[in-house]
Amino acid sequence: MTFSATDHLHMARALRLAERAAYTTRPNPMVGCVIAHGEQVVGEGWHQRAGGPHAEIHALRAAGEAARGATAYVTLEPCAHYGRTPPCALALIEARVGRVVAAMRDPFPKVDGGGFTLLRDAGIEVAEGLMATQARELNHGFLSRIERGRPWLRVKLAASLDGRTAMADGSSKWITGPAAREDVQHWRARAGAILTGAGTVLADDPQLTVRLSGVEALPPLRVVLDAQLRTLSQRRVREGDAATLYLHGEGERAPADTDAQFQALPLQDGRFDLPAVMALLAEREINEVHTEAGATLSGALVRAGLVDELLLYQAPTLLGEQGRPLLDGLGIAAMDQQRRLRVVEQRQVGDDLRLLLRPA
Amino acid sequence: MTFSATDHLHMARALRLAERAAYTTRPNPMVGCVIAHGEQVVGEGWHQRAGGPHAEIHALRAAGEAARGATAYVTLEPCAHYGRTPPCALALIEARVGRVVAAMRDPFPKVDGGGFTLLRDAGIEVAEGLMATQARELNHGFLSRIERGRPWLRVKLAASLDGRTAMADGSSKWITGPAAREDVQHWRARAGAILTGAGTVLADDPQLTVRLSGVEALPPLRVVLDAQLRTLSQRRVREGDAATLYLHGEGERAPADTDAQFQALPLQDGRFDLPAVMALLAEREINEVHTEAGATLSGALVRAGLVDELLLYQAPTLLGEQGRPLLDGLGIAAMDQQRRLRVVEQRQVGDDLRLLLRPA
Repeated sequence: MTFSATDHLHMARALRLAERAAYTTRPNPMVGCVIAHGEQVVGEGWHQRAGGPHAEIHALRAAGEAARGATAYVTLEPCAHYGRTPPCALALIEARVGRVVAAMRDPFPKVDGGGFTLLRDAGIEVAEGLMATQARELNHGFLSRIERGRPWLRVKLAASLDGRTAMADGSSKWITGPAAREDVQHWRARAGAILTGAGTVLADDPQLTVRLSGVEALPPLRVVLDAQLRTLSQRRVREGDAATLYLHGEGERAPADTDAQFQALPLQDGRFDLPAVMALLAEREINEVHTEAGATLSGALVRAGLVDELLLYQAPTLLGEQGRPLLDGLGIAAMDQQRRLRVVEQRQVGDDLRLLLRPA
Repeated sequence: MTFSATDHLHMARALRLAERAAYTTRPNPMVGCVIAHGEQVVGEGWHQRAGGPHAEIHALRAAGEAARGATAYVTLEPCAHYGRTPPCALALIEARVGRVVAAMRDPFPKVDGGGFTLLRDAGIEVAEGLMATQARELNHGFLSRIERGRPWLRVKLAASLDGRTAMADGSSKWITGPAAREDVQHWRARAGAILTGAGTVLADDPQLTVRLSGVEALPPLRVVLDAQLRTLSQRRVREGDAATLYLHGEGERAPADTDAQFQALPLQDGRFDLPAVMALLAEREINEVHTEAGATLSGALVRAGLVDELLLYQAPTLLGEQGRPLLDGLGIAAMDQQRRLRVVEQRQVGDDLRLLLRPA
C-alpha cells in the first residue's frame, strides 16, 4: 500500500487532533478524523470523551454534504458495533465518502477488522497502515490493555546525577525544580491511574492529584499498594476529586467508614503479585498507569519486567554515596543481567534533565 | 565599547581559527587572528605550536601589504615581550595596521596589558572585550593556570542511569558504547595531563594515551597518583609516546630502571594533598587536567572543590543498587550539603548520553 504526501499530511493532522483528548477520552482510545477532497479539508474532529460522539461523527457533521466522495482519514479503524454510540462505519457509508484511510486496525474485539469489512462491503475503498507506528504510539495504553491484558506502565523517578533519590535519612525536598514538578502533572493527567506504595504514602503523605489550572482532565484513580493497610491515617491521598483504591492483603479488613475503595489480593511472602495487580487494573479499564513510588516498589516493577517506560528527571546535583538508591531490589549481580534501556527522548526541563526510556 | 556586526563576524572567525590548535598549542594559549578591511578578510592565522609563530604573525604574512590600515582581530592580547618569538605588538605596529580588536587581555605576567600599551603608544586604536566570554572559555585551561595557579580540572565518569560505574565485583566492560569511548579520546587530546589513581591502574591496566587516527595531537602527560608505588608492575601506563609521571609519598623510593618520571610529595594520613598536586601540575605548565579515575580519587577531587567540570557519560542501563557508586567519599549528610551543578551541554553520543557539568 502506498500513500501520497497529501495522505500523510491529513493523517498527521488527524493524529494531532486525536491527541487533544489525551486527558479526557479514557478508557476509550484517542481518535482523530480528517475529511478531505484532495488537499482541501472539509471536516475534522476528534473523540473527546467516552460516551460522546466518535471522531468520525464530529468530522462528518462538520463536512455536511461535502463528505460525499471525500476521503476520510482516521487514526483508528472506524467502529462496527453499537456501543454507547452507533457504528461509525455506518455513518461513513451513509455520508457516501469515497475512501477511508485508517492508520491501524482496532484490536478491540467488537471491532477488529469489522469496520473495514462493513466499509468494503458498501463499496468504499479502504486503505490501512498509514502512519501506523505513530498511531500505535498515540494509544499505547489502550492497545496494551486490549492486546496484553495489562496497562501501559510508566515509572516516574527523580534523582541526582549519581542516581540518588534522597539522603540516607529520607530527606529529599526538593531534588528537582519547579519546572520538573509542573511537568509531572501532565504525565499524571494522561494516566488512568496513579500508582504508589505504602512507604511513599507514609513518608511523603502525597495527594497524587492532577493540578493543572485551566486544563480539563479526568481525575486519575489513585491506587495505593498497602498490604497491611498501615497508611490509612494519611488522609491526603483520599482528598480531592479523584477516587482512591487501596489494594491490600486478603487477611486485612477494609474499614467501612471511608469513601475510598478497597480490594483484597492474595499476597506471596507478604508481597503483592505485581502482574496480578496490573491485570486487576486492566479489568478496571485502566489504559495507562503512572507510578510515583519509592525505590522498593519501583524496583520491584522493573525486576518483574512490567515497566514500559521510565520517566527520569535528573537534577544536576550530586547527593553522595550515602544517598538512597534510585531503585532497590533489582537483583543484578553481573553485567549480563543489567537492564538495558533506550533513550526515547531527552530534554531540559527548567534546570533539570528529563529522560524518557524504554526497555531496549 | 560597542562593536559592529562585522567586528563580531571577524572575531567569531578568529575564535574558530584558534580552536584548530586545541591539541597542539599547549602550554601556550590558543589564539586566532583575522586581518580585515571592513568585511573583506586579507589575512588570517592561528597559533599552531608553542615555539612557532603566533597567530598575528601568520595573519600578517598572509595579508602582506594589505595589512596597512586594516583592523586586526585577535582572540587574546598581542604579546609584548621577547619570548621564543619577538613581540607580536611590534609586528602589528610595523605592519601599520589601523586598529586592533582583542577579545581579552592576556593575564600572563609578561604581557598583562603591555601589548595594548605598546599599540596605543604607536597611535593604533585598540578595542578590547569583544566576545570575551567565548575567548575565556576557549582558554580556560591556560587562564586557570595563570590566574589560579592550578590547571582546569575535568573529571570524566561513565555510569548507568542509576549512577553505578561497575558491578560490586568491579566488572564494568563495557557500560558505554564505542561512540562514547571514541569521544573520550578528543577530551584526552585537549588536556596537558591525564590523571588517574593507583586503584584504576591496578584494576584496569589502562594505557591512557590519545588514540585518534589522522589527528595531530601532543601526547598528554600521564600522571599516576600512587602513594605507595604499588602499581609499577602494570606497564601499559608507561607504554606509548606519552611521558608518565608517578606521584608518590615521600617515604617511597622511586625505581631507577624505568623511563618514567617520579616525584615525591608529602602525604597526610596516607593521602595526597590534592591542591598541592594541582599546584605541582601547574608548575609543570599543565593547563588542563583530564581525570579518568575511580570513585575514590574522583570523589576526593569533588570533595576538595577542585573539579571545574564533570564529563559524564550515561549509558541507558540500570546496574542495580549493589553496583559501585559514581563517586565515593563526598561526605554529604544533608540536602544542604549537596553539590549543585549546572548543565553546560547535553547530547547523545551513540546510544549513550553525554553531560558536561560545572559547579552551579
